[in-house]
Amino acid sequence: MQTNREQAVFEAGIKLGALYHQWVGTPVSRESAASVESAIEKSVILQPCVEEITVRLDRSLMQPNRFGYSELCGLMFEVGIVTRVEFSYCRARLSQNKGYPLMQVVECLEIEHLPHH
Amino acid sequence: MQTNREQAVFEAGIKLGALYHQWVGTPVSRESAASVESAIEKSVILQPCVEEITVRLDRSLMQPNRFGYSELCGLMFEVGIVTRVEFSYCRARLSQNKGYPLMQVVECLEIEHLPHH
Amino acid sequence: MQTNREQAVFEAGIKLGALYHQWVGTPVSRESAASVESAIEKSVILQPCVEEITVRLDRSLMQPNRFGYSELCGLMFEVGIVTRVEFSYCRARLSQNKGYPLMQVVECLEIEHLPHH
Amino acid sequence: MQTNREQAVFEAGIKLGALYHQWVGTPVSRESAASVESAIEKSVILQPCVEEITVRLDRSLMQPNRFGYSELCGLMFEVGIVTRVEFSYCRARLSQNKGYPLMQVVECLEIEHLPHH
Repeated sequence: MQTNREQAVFEAGIKLGALYHQWVGTPVSRESAASVESAIEKSVILQPCVEEITVRLDRSLMQPNRFGYSELCGLMFEVGIVTRVEFSYCRARLSQNKGYPLMQVVECLEIEHLPHH
Repeated sequence: MQTNREQAVFEAGIKLGALYHQWVGTPVSRESAASVESAIEKSVILQPCVEEITVRLDRSLMQPNRFGYSELCGLMFEVGIVTRVEFSYCRARLSQNKGYPLMQVVECLEIEHLPHH
Repeated sequence: MQTNREQAVFEAGIKLGALYHQWVGTPVSRESAASVESAIEKSVILQPCVEEITVRLDRSLMQPNRFGYSELCGLMFEVGIVTRVEFSYCRARLSQNKGYPLMQVVECLEIEHLPHH
Repeated sequence: MQTNREQAVFEAGIKLGALYHQWVGTPVSRESAASVESAIEKSVILQPCVEEITVRLDRSLMQPNRFGYSELCGLMFEVGIVTRVEFSYCRARLSQNKGYPLMQVVECLEIEHLPHH
């Protein structure tokens, strides 16, 4: 039987994998990036167990093609997410790591129940 | 050799096919729909030959699942697009037609050159 | 610091979230379903930490539209995956649960080191 | 009112735009490429007006990342498609052109009705 902590970790993985493959390939430019960031955040926060989500796209990688735009690629993502199951929290991220868009658990926290008096 | 008019028609097809498969599956709710509409519009307008794009998602089809959100599905799209190649324009749309998300050319227009005096 | 077991759980979540959003929306029929199943399996097995992957698409949900095909939707997925980090394994699945395409950890196993003699 | 020829051109554009955005981002390797090619072909041929579809992925672009696989990107596509509306055919393609994954109409053909005797 898995713990709440493991469940929070699982949910964080699901959300990062999902957003990556949902959004990769979207036409994007430095001007439109903020709109895409906002739409991703508003989409991810709808899903179960998501407490926080921040999406930042690395504009320095948005080299315009001959038509003046780029495609959203994995290396552009700088994503932080916090998931929660009961009193267990998982903070994870997706960001570039040596040329690979790496998904990692940053930390897990469990909030202690306060003692009753 | 294809005409400018045919090229405009081709470009309209590309854009409608592309946006459909890029965005289907995105988690969405009535509250977040406007953000997704805006992100799609700002993404499509970046692409070559696109003069106008309007995206409206049918909120009546956004029946919340047990976690309170929906997934963007093809039948939700009400999209109008205008593409242009030189002086030829194509207006096309994606909208529900008898239970199928149909893509159609609405009209093609060619602007006459004004006579020189 | 997370354990190998938690890392295996995280990787399972990533892969299930990823495949869902990569493949939803693909045109599919009962005749082509086997080809799609195979392509998904061969794609997922490439990714880090994946030991086993089985994908079965529920053909009973493939009701042909007026053009004779369906779209791959979340409820069609019956997926089992095993991820591994060192000596820790996670078995997870994606399958329909009361009308929702649910991703769940099934079990986690840790293989004991054999005692040295 | 658009002609059958224009409709065939429109349908070719739809299919190329759709397959591009459906499949970009899929994990792929030289070993699994044939399976993905086959799944794309079997998916596209299901759609209305498609007479022929051939998909070839450029394996020379599949440089393995540190985990040994690549992601399907637009420049890998070498796609040929033939669409038909009544007696009008459109041949189009998606292939790399000066570093951009270009979609182009190759030719349109109309088959003459045979004279009645």
